[in-house]
Amino acid sequence: MKALLIIIDGAADRALKSLNRKTPLEVAHKPNIDKLAKDGITGIMDPITPGISVGSDTAHLALLGYDPFKTYTGRGAFEALGAGVELKPGEIAFRTNFATVDENMRVIDRRAGRYIEEAKEFEKIINSISLKDNPDVEIFFKHTVEHRGVLVLRGKGLSRFISDTDPHEIGVRVLESKPLVDTPEAKKTANVINEFTRIIYNLLKDHPLNRSRAKRGLPPANILLLRGAGVLPTIKPLSEKFKIKAACIAGIALVKGVAKAVGMDIINVPGATGGLDTDVLAKVKYAIKALRDYDFVFIHYKGTDAASHDGNVWAKIRMIERIDSAVGYLIERIKLDETYIVITADHATLTEETRNHSGDFVPLLIHGPGVISDDVDMFCERACLKGGLGRIRGLDLMNIIMNYLNKVEKFGE
Amino acid sequence: MKALLIIIDGAADRALKSLNRKTPLEVAHKPNIDKLAKDGITGIMDPITPGISVGSDTAHLALLGYDPFKTYTGRGAFEALGAGVELKPGEIAFRTNFATVDENMRVIDRRAGRYIEEAKEFEKIINSISLKDNPDVEIFFKHTVEHRGVLVLRGKGLSRFISDTDPHEIGVRVLESKPLVDTPEAKKTANVINEFTRIIYNLLKDHPLNRSRAKRGLPPANILLLRGAGVLPTIKPLSEKFKIKAACIAGIALVKGVAKAVGMDIINVPGATGGLDTDVLAKVKYAIKALRDYDFVFIHYKGTDAASHDGNVWAKIRMIERIDSAVGYLIERIKLDETYIVITADHATLTEETRNHSGDFVPLLIHGPGVISDDVDMFCERACLKGGLGRIRGLDLMNIIMNYLNKVEKFGE
Repeated sequence: MKALLIIIDGAADRALKSLNRKTPLEVAHKPNIDKLAKDGITGIMDPITPGISVGSDTAHLALLGYDPFKTYTGRGAFEALGAGVELKPGEIAFRTNFATVDENMRVIDRRAGRYIEEAKEFEKIINSISLKDNPDVEIFFKHTVEHRGVLVLRGKGLSRFISDTDPHEIGVRVLESKPLVDTPEAKKTANVINEFTRIIYNLLKDHPLNRSRAKRGLPPANILLLRGAGVLPTIKPLSEKFKIKAACIAGIALVKGVAKAVGMDIINVPGATGGLDTDVLAKVKYAIKALRDYDFVFIHYKGTDAASHDGNVWAKIRMIERIDSAVGYLIERIKLDETYIVITADHATLTEETRNHSGDFVPLLIHGPGVISDDVDMFCERACLKGGLGRIRGLDLMNIIMNYLNKVEKFGE
Repeated sequence: MKALLIIIDGAADRALKSLNRKTPLEVAHKPNIDKLAKDGITGIMDPITPGISVGSDTAHLALLGYDPFKTYTGRGAFEALGAGVELKPGEIAFRTNFATVDENMRVIDRRAGRYIEEAKEFEKIINSISLKDNPDVEIFFKHTVEHRGVLVLRGKGLSRFISDTDPHEIGVRVLESKPLVDTPEAKKTANVINEFTRIIYNLLKDHPLNRSRAKRGLPPANILLLRGAGVLPTIKPLSEKFKIKAACIAGIALVKGVAKAVGMDIINVPGATGGLDTDVLAKVKYAIKALRDYDFVFIHYKGTDAASHDGNVWAKIRMIERIDSAVGYLIERIKLDETYIVITADHATLTEETRNHSGDFVPLLIHGPGVISDDVDMFCERACLKGGLGRIRGLDLMNIIMNYLNKVEKFGE
């Protein structure tokens, strides 16, 4: 028996005015997923508990079976793992942006124009930095995509409890990092970050690469903004917890990072962009292959969440429909009597109201051998309210899936 | 976006013989509330967990988002706050009854005839008491309604872990207060209470006010019975937790006290008695006004619970119908596309069987913009069993409401 989990990021929503009080999942034409709902069991799920709003990191931890209140140690760590950086216990990882600041360190462009051709050169410069005030701390930087990257501090006595330097808005000065707790470790780490920020600005402000960018009319990449300090979480991997081999197919670093943190292998798929333009079919094709070698395969689609953050209802619907066609391809090619298919969202993203994550419930379907079907014949929030699974919590999901695979150890005798 | 929470105290019940196996909420004619159920989402709720019976204090704490197992510190504190007494940390508050005892301190009337005309005079006498054995402890007393009042001990080294002096039945002697834990604080507080009880009896037994009552054929108010020792709970107020302004409209001191403890403003409404005779419409009118200034308004109706304690099924039904008419007035006058209306009960009260609170589930409805409606078109226990919210817990309610108002902070990124 194998299981395939498809998480459609931010797919759930509220009853929208522009859809005549329906949700995007209700409006989308998705005959394949609805067929799975019809033949399977459905329900609703709170990623944490009812009403609690979650990030993609905490939501994925919960849905993969790890209590985020116990295992979440900051987003930076997952970004680093997802970017292929080997993170060791005690090291502090940050998400970073190349950005443009003026001579008063005021942020003019939080993305330095977004496309940084010279990123690899800048990467070398940053990796050559040595700190004078904190000579025992080593800097490691890796550029990922566009203006984004990951910075890691390597050294002893560091802490993740420090504030961001990224002010998250333009027109204001780069922030000084501050210790969030009163410990020598947090003070030292904030000090390291502030020294690093001064050094990098001095190195980059008049750098030939930036003078060249200016000549071409591009904003200089003269600062690195840091946010989301994190450390490697202490986690018992899925292989130990359930004695399974698990793989993740995702486009974005964060989800790959969470998957890696819980001990999944990462399968990189050409064309998996993590955006609306992702190759939905390619992910499914790789998943079909992976199901031969792995007990549990997890496919993540990000486009729905991106469309919601943009407030684009129809792009969200279209993305759901594209995923449905990939599911159609899938179910014709795998053995449905040997494979559980689980489809859900990691959280709702409110396309009309806040354009952000919310604490609303999400729909869930489980299809596979031995599953007791209910009367629901559609995969959407409203229909799944009547689902046979009732209302479960994110942390229950992996146990339910692993139980179908008969991988859950008996408690008691 | 605003939210209005209406709690109908003890409204839930069991299938009653006298109603041909229906519940009071099923039998009551309540077209307005049922319309909200039809257009909204419904479900059932356990104030704590299934089967656990709750007091009005613990139920309201839970429904307002505070775990009573962590925040409940005795009923006396809420009564004091609700009576408008400023309670400081460390002070011990009691609910009190004026009562009648014989020369052997045996209770003859637990309410001293219930109506104590001379209450204000007695209040002065009690507030002039100074303790000889415990000169560092100050006594503060406030009469509230009928035979009821609040007593506060002010001083250092006091404890709420002492037993009541109120024997809760007639024919037996006033109890000696005993320490419930083996600490010097509890011993001292029990000692204070026992000294106070001796002093007040000696002051009041032959007092001219009581001689005058005797002449008029009234039982003397010659003792003050104490119960429900409590201290101010340590609570993060709603304003900090959700960054909202919240107001409470209630007739009874206990509910006002809980609301005040969690940081709500108390709006006093003329005609709000907390009984079956309350002005149901006046509360709604004040709530409509309050919704202009507050994010969250909570209306409490007590009459249903009072009717249940009296075993009066039809009074309960009639009270539900009166509340329904007030809801009808409300929904014609507020912007339904900008306001969430939530209706529930704090617990069930069994009108036929025990005439007391029980651990049965209660029905719940949420109506408002973006809410995904279910098929339920009636607000009652039986119909809400099929509701889309499924079965939630009291502690989830505020998170769900605040999520609709987009006031829940995201956990993770």
